Amino acid sequence: MPTIVVDVMPKAELLDPAGKAVAGALHRLGDTAFSGVRIGKRFELTVDGEVTDAVLARARELASEMLSNSVIEDVIAVSVDE
Amino acid sequence: MPTIVVDVMPKAELLDPAGKAVAGALHRLGDTAFSGVRIGKRFELTVDGEVTDAVLARARELASEMLSNSVIEDVIAVSVDE
Repeated sequence: MPTIVVDVMPKAELLDPAGKAVAGALHRLGDTAFSGVRIGKRFELTVDGEVTDAVLARARELASEMLSNSVIEDVIAVSVDE
Repeated sequence: MPTIVVDVMPKAELLDPAGKAVAGALHRLGDTAFSGVRIGKRFELTVDGEVTDAVLARARELASEMLSNSVIEDVIAVSVDE
């Protein structure tokens, strides 16, 4: 069944404490190649049937209204994964 | 700066209570196009410099050892996003 993938990340201007903690752990482990870590969410919506334009439009609407908190998060991608 | 994106999802055979809650809310809202929702994580690792094979290999190692819990989660993708 086709899947619509919605990627949500914390806004760039906000602190991401969990990401900062992971970045700190990487530095303590000696991993200097990575300068920062941010942690967001990935939603997989299974679509019953075909992904029509209407379904994709509704998914975009849900992504910004229900799956993300626009005060602290950005929807960075809504894509179809067959 | 280049970014390595790590996508982690709950294993298919496990319940995902948060995803189930979202799917239930969608049904109550009358959205019948979506038959299921699963919620995972998206990590963005900012790379200081070039993404060499060694850096990517280390990111894959970190993805399975540190960024995911292999008992309940699968790393579904490690990709470079320039």
